[in-house]
Amino acid sequence: MRTLLVIGIGAGDPDHLTLEAVKAIGRTDAFLLLDKPEERQDLIRLRRQMIAEHGRPGHRVVELIDPARDRTTAAYKEAVEEWRERRADLVEQAVVEELAEGQTGALLVWGDPALYDSVIAVLDRILARGRTEFEYTVVPGISSISVLAARHRTTLTRTARPVRITTGRRLAAEGFGPGSEDAVVMLDGQAAFTKIDPAGVHIHYGAYLGTEDEILAAGPLAEQADRIAELREQARERKGWIMDSYLLRRTDSE
Amino acid sequence: MRTLLVIGIGAGDPDHLTLEAVKAIGRTDAFLLLDKPEERQDLIRLRRQMIAEHGRPGHRVVELIDPARDRTTAAYKEAVEEWRERRADLVEQAVVEELAEGQTGALLVWGDPALYDSVIAVLDRILARGRTEFEYTVVPGISSISVLAARHRTTLTRTARPVRITTGRRLAAEGFGPGSEDAVVMLDGQAAFTKIDPAGVHIHYGAYLGTEDEILAAGPLAEQADRIAELREQARERKGWIMDSYLLRRTDSE
Ligand SMILES: C[S@@+](CC[C@H](N)C(=O)[O-])C[C@H]1O[C@@H](n2cnc3c(N)ncnc32)[C@H](O)[C@@H]1O
Ligand SMILES: C[S@@+](CC[C@H](N)C(=O)[O-])C[C@H]1O[C@@H](n2cnc3c(N)ncnc32)[C@H](O)[C@@H]1O
Repeated sequence: MRTLLVIGIGAGDPDHLTLEAVKAIGRTDAFLLLDKPEERQDLIRLRRQMIAEHGRPGHRVVELIDPARDRTTAAYKEAVEEWRERRADLVEQAVVEELAEGQTGALLVWGDPALYDSVIAVLDRILARGRTEFEYTVVPGISSISVLAARHRTTLTRTARPVRITTGRRLAAEGFGPGSEDAVVMLDGQAAFTKIDPAGVHIHYGAYLGTEDEILAAGPLAEQADRIAELREQARERKGWIMDSYLLRRTDSE
Repeated sequence: MRTLLVIGIGAGDPDHLTLEAVKAIGRTDAFLLLDKPEERQDLIRLRRQMIAEHGRPGHRVVELIDPARDRTTAAYKEAVEEWRERRADLVEQAVVEELAEGQTGALLVWGDPALYDSVIAVLDRILARGRTEFEYTVVPGISSISVLAARHRTTLTRTARPVRITTGRRLAAEGFGPGSEDAVVMLDGQAAFTKIDPAGVHIHYGAYLGTEDEILAAGPLAEQADRIAELREQARERKGWIMDSYLLRRTDSE
């Protein structure tokens, strides 16, 4: 039997690796790295450093070029579906070709595999095809939103209250009017926080969390939205990409 | 200046400590441990093992007996408020008495300090009083819900969809009817999953996640609710306490 490990590696700080993740990296024969074509060189470098530091002698690194996803289409779910199918082909082929019986492969996932990540779905899809057998285990990781809260020294949940984890797309569509529950927003390519009514809303914002380029901002959204949108654009131009998330709270709700 | 570290230590598995947490434990002069009077001896033991393993020579461990909270009252928020005030007294006194200028104290938090934990609020309260000065940093940790998702090899968020993190109390009050968003339920002392209409709902359940006593169950809620409630009662009797959380999803929603 082959074994695959889905390892959450944290959102940017190599010290956010858990001891379990370090051990998992240390018993991996082959790392199957899904690199998005447009991906940010510094993230690829960071991942390679983690492998070099914690990998065991003789480990192999296999680069899989992640098929580009059509991000222009309105049919978001269909585009994701097709992309996953192609990714599954790629990963299945790598498992067959790169791992002998009894060997262990690893897929490294940014943050926590539990949040907006598709690797688990890809592996389930391969298993469902019934052609290739393996066992797999998921190693939880520090998500970017845990780092967001830590840096702002706040909690995501207020006492006995709920918090919603949602996407920029949904925030823009749904708004954040009176009575809205506290929300953590991820996957926001469009600065959706500038598109909602800022009255009574507080933001805790973070970009490149856990890295040297970390940007933090917080305050009433009415005062901060434009400033953050500008910081965000400048940073995106400087680095060529941005990863950010934020917590929104209505301060007028009890 | 004194420094305090709020360190997320994971939800039960010592290997869920991050490298950052290990380093933070290693530079701590005094651990300020808030032990709830009713607290579970095995958790206290686990925390002590982590300190013994990663603490530096000469570190001190200070036991603070966490004032019991009135859990019978309906005025939940007020009870929490009063409890925090007394906790703040306790921690403030320990900081003053146990930490010399330039020393570092640590507060260890189960899971991730960002989720349903009051230590950050306690420290902010002490600082707001203006009598005792310190700097503090939060070290994010692996939350029990990350472990829940990992064990079930699922994600908390379905593609491009939101997830709500909420409490058993709210679930029981609000129900989980058609159209409900995926929900992660924590702080459920009353098996609220048995009090909602199970039709069309799927549950991923976990107790004592990360520990040797880990219990997992999953399936349609209609089939699982009674079984889980029973497992839960048996486990609570056997161990004297229970910590559990679960993910609910409507399978009839797209
Ligand atoms: C595909 S999701 C993956 C999330 C990841 N599994 C996690 O737990 O953080 C990517 C989104 O995560 C957030 N994110 C990931 N890394 C981040 C970082 N270092 N700083 C801020 N946000 C980050 C952003 O919202 C980004 O759009
Ligand atoms: C006061 S909250 C603290 C949560 C913690 N900060 C975290 O990130 O997991 C306690 C609740 O967390 C959940 N919990 C904590 N540890 C757990 C474990 N080992 N297994 C299952 N649930 C756990 C339960 O829902 C419990 O009622």
